[in-house]
Amino acid sequence: MRSFVAGLTLLASTAYAVNPSDVPLRGYSAEHSATEVQWEQKFRALPEPERLRETMRRLSARPHHVGSPYDKDNAEWLVAQLKSYGLDAKIELQEALFPTPKLRKLELLGVDKFEAKLEEPTLKIDPTSDQKKEQLPTYNAYSRDGDVTAPLVYVNYGAPADYEELEKMGISVKGAIVIARYGQTWRGIKPKVAAEHGAVGCLIYSDPRDDGYFRGDSYPDGPMRPSEGAQRGSVMDMPVYPGDPQTPGIGAVAGTKLIPLDQVQTITKIPVLPISYADATPFLKSLKGELVPESWRGGLPFAYKVGPSVAKAHLALAFNWDRKPLYNVIAKIPGTTLADQWVIRGNHHDGWVNGAGDPVSGASAELEEARGLGELLKQGWRPQRTILYCFWDGEEPALLGSTEWVESHAAELSEHAVAYFNSDGNSRGYFRAEGSSSLENFVDSVVKDIEDPETKMTVWKRERLVAISKASADTRSELRSRADLRMEALGSGSDYTAFIHHLGIASVNLGYGGEDQGGGQYHSIYDDFYWYTHFMDTDFAYGRALAQTAGTMMMRMADADVIPFQFGNVADTVKTYVTGVKKLADTMRAEVKERNTEINDGVYKALEDPKKKRVAPTVETLPPYLNFAPLDQAVDDLTTAASDYDKAFTASALKAPLTLNPKLIQSERAFLDPAGLPNRSWFQNMMYAPGFYTGYGVKTLPAARETIEQKQWKDVDAQIARTAAAVEREAAMLMQATQILTGK
Amino acid sequence: MRSFVAGLTLLASTAYAVNPSDVPLRGYSAEHSATEVQWEQKFRALPEPERLRETMRRLSARPHHVGSPYDKDNAEWLVAQLKSYGLDAKIELQEALFPTPKLRKLELLGVDKFEAKLEEPTLKIDPTSDQKKEQLPTYNAYSRDGDVTAPLVYVNYGAPADYEELEKMGISVKGAIVIARYGQTWRGIKPKVAAEHGAVGCLIYSDPRDDGYFRGDSYPDGPMRPSEGAQRGSVMDMPVYPGDPQTPGIGAVAGTKLIPLDQVQTITKIPVLPISYADATPFLKSLKGELVPESWRGGLPFAYKVGPSVAKAHLALAFNWDRKPLYNVIAKIPGTTLADQWVIRGNHHDGWVNGAGDPVSGASAELEEARGLGELLKQGWRPQRTILYCFWDGEEPALLGSTEWVESHAAELSEHAVAYFNSDGNSRGYFRAEGSSSLENFVDSVVKDIEDPETKMTVWKRERLVAISKASADTRSELRSRADLRMEALGSGSDYTAFIHHLGIASVNLGYGGEDQGGGQYHSIYDDFYWYTHFMDTDFAYGRALAQTAGTMMMRMADADVIPFQFGNVADTVKTYVTGVKKLADTMRAEVKERNTEINDGVYKALEDPKKKRVAPTVETLPPYLNFAPLDQAVDDLTTAASDYDKAFTASALKAPLTLNPKLIQSERAFLDPAGLPNRSWFQNMMYAPGFYTGYGVKTLPAARETIEQKQWKDVDAQIARTAAAVEREAAMLMQATQILTGK
Repeated sequence: MRSFVAGLTLLASTAYAVNPSDVPLRGYSAEHSATEVQWEQKFRALPEPERLRETMRRLSARPHHVGSPYDKDNAEWLVAQLKSYGLDAKIELQEALFPTPKLRKLELLGVDKFEAKLEEPTLKIDPTSDQKKEQLPTYNAYSRDGDVTAPLVYVNYGAPADYEELEKMGISVKGAIVIARYGQTWRGIKPKVAAEHGAVGCLIYSDPRDDGYFRGDSYPDGPMRPSEGAQRGSVMDMPVYPGDPQTPGIGAVAGTKLIPLDQVQTITKIPVLPISYADATPFLKSLKGELVPESWRGGLPFAYKVGPSVAKAHLALAFNWDRKPLYNVIAKIPGTTLADQWVIRGNHHDGWVNGAGDPVSGASAELEEARGLGELLKQGWRPQRTILYCFWDGEEPALLGSTEWVESHAAELSEHAVAYFNSDGNSRGYFRAEGSSSLENFVDSVVKDIEDPETKMTVWKRERLVAISKASADTRSELRSRADLRMEALGSGSDYTAFIHHLGIASVNLGYGGEDQGGGQYHSIYDDFYWYTHFMDTDFAYGRALAQTAGTMMMRMADADVIPFQFGNVADTVKTYVTGVKKLADTMRAEVKERNTEINDGVYKALEDPKKKRVAPTVETLPPYLNFAPLDQAVDDLTTAASDYDKAFTASALKAPLTLNPKLIQSERAFLDPAGLPNRSWFQNMMYAPGFYTGYGVKTLPAARETIEQKQWKDVDAQIARTAAAVEREAAMLMQATQILTGK
Repeated sequence: MRSFVAGLTLLASTAYAVNPSDVPLRGYSAEHSATEVQWEQKFRALPEPERLRETMRRLSARPHHVGSPYDKDNAEWLVAQLKSYGLDAKIELQEALFPTPKLRKLELLGVDKFEAKLEEPTLKIDPTSDQKKEQLPTYNAYSRDGDVTAPLVYVNYGAPADYEELEKMGISVKGAIVIARYGQTWRGIKPKVAAEHGAVGCLIYSDPRDDGYFRGDSYPDGPMRPSEGAQRGSVMDMPVYPGDPQTPGIGAVAGTKLIPLDQVQTITKIPVLPISYADATPFLKSLKGELVPESWRGGLPFAYKVGPSVAKAHLALAFNWDRKPLYNVIAKIPGTTLADQWVIRGNHHDGWVNGAGDPVSGASAELEEARGLGELLKQGWRPQRTILYCFWDGEEPALLGSTEWVESHAAELSEHAVAYFNSDGNSRGYFRAEGSSSLENFVDSVVKDIEDPETKMTVWKRERLVAISKASADTRSELRSRADLRMEALGSGSDYTAFIHHLGIASVNLGYGGEDQGGGQYHSIYDDFYWYTHFMDTDFAYGRALAQTAGTMMMRMADADVIPFQFGNVADTVKTYVTGVKKLADTMRAEVKERNTEINDGVYKALEDPKKKRVAPTVETLPPYLNFAPLDQAVDDLTTAASDYDKAFTASALKAPLTLNPKLIQSERAFLDPAGLPNRSWFQNMMYAPGFYTGYGVKTLPAARETIEQKQWKDVDAQIARTAAAVEREAAMLMQATQILTGK
C-alpha cells in the first residue's frame, strides 16, 4: 500500500509530502485512508496561481461594498463560476441595515482654523484608485448622526486601560471629542469606551507608527499607508451581537419584523469618524497639557500632548439609514452516505472598496478549492458528507451576511453542521489557524501534508519551527514535546463568529501571512489589485497554499467515516483556560494588595512632582478568594472522559456505529448556555467569546473572566458554576460517545 | 541630649530632619556625635538658592571650554571666591592635548547633493546663544583627521550587538561611512566599533526619538533638542585610559615627556563628526536596502533603511593638535588631629560651551558647600581630617584635569585619600548615588538627614519609595527588607574615574534628577542659563539640596573618629557580582546550545524569506564550564571577615586605636591589581570598570566578565583567580582591622 501511495505521489506531483506513516488517517479505515490520500493529492495539484490572479483581478476590479452594483455583480459572477464547475450554486438573499454617509464635516476652530479633507487621493500609478463615483467615502459604519463642537483630548488607543491612565493624570474626557489612534483594540471599542467616559465625539486616525512610514515605505513606493490614507470600518457594538442591528438572533429577509432604529443597542452613542494622519496632524498639534506616556507616542514629528486643546473641534455627521440586500452565495456538493452532516467553508466577498487583500485574496482561494472539488467530482470522487461553499456578503459592516444566514438556518445548522472552516484576507508566509481545540489534531494532520511554497518543508514543520524561534524557554519546551500545535481560541473579526459563538459549531479560521507588512492599506481605496500584486503574495503561491490547505480540510472532514475530533486537547486546553482565570484573580488580588501597601507607605506621595498633575489612587478592598472548585472538578471530569474517549476511539473507531457521528456533532454545542453571557445573550459559548472591551480579541471562559475583570465579585461564583456546568456537559457527552464506541 | 538637639534644630531651621534615634553616628562617640549633628545642621541652613542662581549666571555667562579665555577666568574667579570664604585655594596647573577643529566638511554627493550646515543657530530669546566667536563648533574631540568618500550604512546606536544584527542581515560596513544615532552606548564606542568592523568614517546624529520632540517640546518652546541642535563630545578611547593621551599614568605639566601623536592609542582610528537631525535627514533618506529592525527606528518621519546608500557621503576633518593648560582649582581646609587623612570633593568647571547644566549646576552647589564650610570655620568648627574642594578643568574632553591631577599626586593620594565625593550636572527630582559599597551605609545615613524640597520627606525615604514604585516584585521585597539602599557600581563619565579605578580610592558620585527631561541640550550651545532657569531646577531647590547632601557627607567623613566604612554591604555586593558573572556564563552556554539545536532542527531554514537577505548562524562549540571555586571561596572569606569586623566595630569602635584608620583607608586599595585589566593596565580596580565596549556603563568583576563576554575561554580561569585574589586581599585587610579593633 505504502509504495503505491508513494508512486501515485510522484505521478501527481513530485513535491507533495505524503502521510508520513502507515497509520491511517484519523476516522478512516486503512483502506479508506489510502483512497482518501490519493484523492487529496489529486486535489492539491489543481489550484493554479494564474487563476487566482485573474479571479482577484475580476472581483476587485471595481468597488464592491454592500449595496453597490458590483457587489451584486460579483455575487452573480461567483454563482456562474461555481455552476460552471458543476456545483449546485445560488444566491441566498438576506438584508440588513447599512448606513452610508450623507454629511461628513470635521474642522478645527480657533486661530489655526483647518478643515479636514476626508479624501483619499487618486494615484496615477494605481489604476483603480480613481473610481471615485463608486467608492464609499472614509467613514465608520454605524456611527450615529451628530453635530458636536468641543475641545479635544488624546486617548492613545482608546482602550479601558488608557482611560485609567488618563484618570491618573487628572484628565477627564467629559464633554470632549476624543482623538484615538487605530490599533491594539478593535475600532468599535474606541467610541464605546469614550462614550462611557462622557465624551461627545470620537476621531480615529491612522498613526504612521502603527501602519505608516514607521513600518516601511509609504504607498505607492512601498506597501504602507500614505499620509492621506484612512481606514474605513465598522464601529457597531458587535461584542453585544453582530449582524443586522434591527434583527438580533433572527435571520433578516424582506418583511422580517424590525426593531425601530432608536431602540437599537449596537449603534454608537456618539458620532465617530476615521481620518488620515494628514488630517489628524493639526488636531493633534492643537493639544495642550502634558506630554503623553512614552507608549502612547506615535510616529508623527512632534511632541504628543494629552490635551485638552484650547481650540475646539467641530464634527458633523449624518447618514442614510437604509436597509440593503445581502447576496450570500451558497454552493452545495451533496453528500452520499452521511448527507445530513454538513461541512461548511466560507469567506466573504464584499469589500470596503476594491478589497483585493481583504477579502479577495481569501475568496479567490476559496473559489479555486470549489473548482478543484468540481474537477474531482468529474473524476468520480463523492464526499460522504454534504459540503457547503459559502461566499458571504456584508462581512465588513458587521458580519451581516454570515450572521443573517446562520440565524436564518439556525435549527438545521444546529442539527447538521459538523464544522466550519473560515478564511479572510490571505498573504505570504506562515500558516496560522485559530479555533476549536477538538480540531487541533485534525488541522495539524492536514498541514503535515501541505508543502510550504518557499521552504519546501511541510507547512506544519515551518509553523512549528517559526513558533519555536519566537517562543520563551517554557513555551519552546512545550512546542518540542506536545504532539499537536496549540490553536488559539477564536474571538471575532470574521464570519466564523455566528457559527462558533452563537450556534456552537466547531470552527477554524485559517490563512497564511507574516512575511509582508499587510496592514498598510487595510480598508482603504488602495487595497486593490495594483497594491496586492506589487507588495503582497505577488505570485499567488500562498493563495494556492490556502486553497490546498482549506480544500484538503474540507475533503478530509467530509469523507471521514467517523468525525476525527480529538478530545485530549480539549481537556488540556480548557485546563489552561482555568489556570489563566485563576491567575487573573490572583494577580488582581496581589496588585490591589501591593498598591494599598504603597499608598500606606507613601509611595505616591514620594512620586509627586509639582510640575505635573497626578491623582493618587485610593486604598481599595482586596478582591475576595473565589470558589473555583466546580471548575476544577469539571476539568478533572473532562480530562478523564476525554482520555477514555480517545483511548476507545483508537481501539475501536473503525467499528464505530453510525450513532457516534451525530453525538460528536454536538460536542461543541455542549459548551452553549442558552442564557448566554452576562448582558449579551447572543453569545452562548461558555468557552470563548470576543471580549466585551476588546471587540476582536478573545476572552476564554468569558462569563467567569469578564466578571472578574469587571470586579463584579458577588457574581463571580455563579458564573464559575455556569462555566463549570458547560464543561461537565462536554464530559457527559464524551462519556456517552465512549459508551457508543465500546458498546458498554 | 536629645531635646537639646531638637531645640537647636528648631533654631537652625524648622524643616530639617534630625538623626532619628539615640544611636550615635557611625564612627563617632555619643558625645562627639551630638556635636557633629549640631554642626551639620548649622551647615545645612547655609546654602542659598539665590546664590546658586548667581553663581550659575557668572560661570555660564560665556563659553568656557578648555583653552578658552573664560575657562581661565572662571578658575581665577573660583579661587577668589574660595579665598573670600577663608579657604586656602589655588590653581594647580596641568596640561593636556586638546584638539580643536580647523576643517569640518560633510556633504552628500550624487543627485540629491546636500552640504551639512554643522551650525547651531542663534535664538533671539536665548541671550547667550549668539556668542559665536567664543563657541566651539560642533565636533567630536580626539577624532583623527581624515578625508573620506564612501557609501553610508545605518548602524543604530553602533554598539557591538548592532553589528551582530547587521551581520545577520548580510550587511558589511567595510569601506563605508557609518551613521549612528547618539544614545545607549557612550559615543566613543561608536567610532571604535565601527573601525573594528572596517568602516572608514563615522557620523553620530541626535535622533528626535532619543532627545528631541519624541521626549517633549523642542527648545525654546520646551527643553528638548531642536532640529539643528548637535551634541559635541569626546570620542577618545577612554576605556583604555582617560586623561592626556600623550602621558598615560603620568601627571602632565609643562615639560613632561610626551608620547608622539602617531603612537597615541586613544585617538580614533577613523574620522568622526556629530550632526543634528536636520543635517542627518538627507543622509538617512539616501539609505537603500531593507527596513531596519523595529528597535532601531528613530523618530524621523520616514522609513529607516539599513543601507548602503547609492549616493556617497564625503567627510573631511582636520584639527589643531594643540596642548592646552588645565586650570584645576584646589581649596584646602586643614585637618586637626587626623590631618594626613584627606576627604576630597570634586566637580568640574569647564563646559563644552556655556555649560549651565553640565557642569555649572553641580559646580555652583559645590561652591555653596565651600562657602558654608567657610562660615562654620568662622564659627569655630574644625574638621579632624583635611578637606579638599576641587574644581576640575578639562573634564569634557577626557577627564583631563582630574586625571592629570590624580596622576600627579598618586603617591600622596594612595597614602592619604579616605574617600572622594563627586558631582556633575544636577537637576530636579530624586537622589541618586553610585559608588563603593563600603560607603553605602554612610551615604544612606547622610540622606536620612536631608529634607527633600518637594515632598518634605527625607531624601532617603523618597529615594527608597520611588525605587519601590519602579521595582520588580523581587527587588521590591529586597528594598523593603535590606537596611541600606544598594548603590550601583561606578563606571565612568565623570571625574571619579581616576580616583576609584586607577588609585582605588573609595568614591561616590551623587546628584539629583529624574523629574525633568535633562538631556535635550547636552553638550549644545543651548545648555545655558536661559535654558536651565526655564526648564530645569528653576528655583535651585535641588542645587541647595545637593550642597546640603555633599557638604554633610564631607563633614561627617572628615569629623569621624573612625572612618565609618561598613563591610557587610561590600561582601553582599561582591556576592551579587559573582552571581551575575556565573549567570552570564550559564546564559551564554544555554544560548549557544539552544541556537545549535535550532540550527540542526531547521529553524533558520523555516525563517528564510526570499524577499529578505538573511545570514543564518553556524553551529558553535559550547562555552566550557569555568572554575569559579576561587571566587566562591573568596566571597565566603570576605563575608566572614566583614561580619566579624562589623560586629567588632559595633562593640568596640569608640575605643579603636588610631592605627585602625590608616588600615581602613586601604580597604578599596585592596581591590587593585597593579597589572590592571587585560589590555588596559591603567584600570587597576578588579571590582569594577567602565566596559571596554560600553565606555561609561560599568562592568563588575571586569577582568573575569569581559574575558567571558569576549569568549576568550582559555583566559577566563586565570582572570577569575586574579579577581578572587583581590577579594581575598580585602578579606585579609578586614581580618587585620578586626584584630586592631579587638586587640587580639
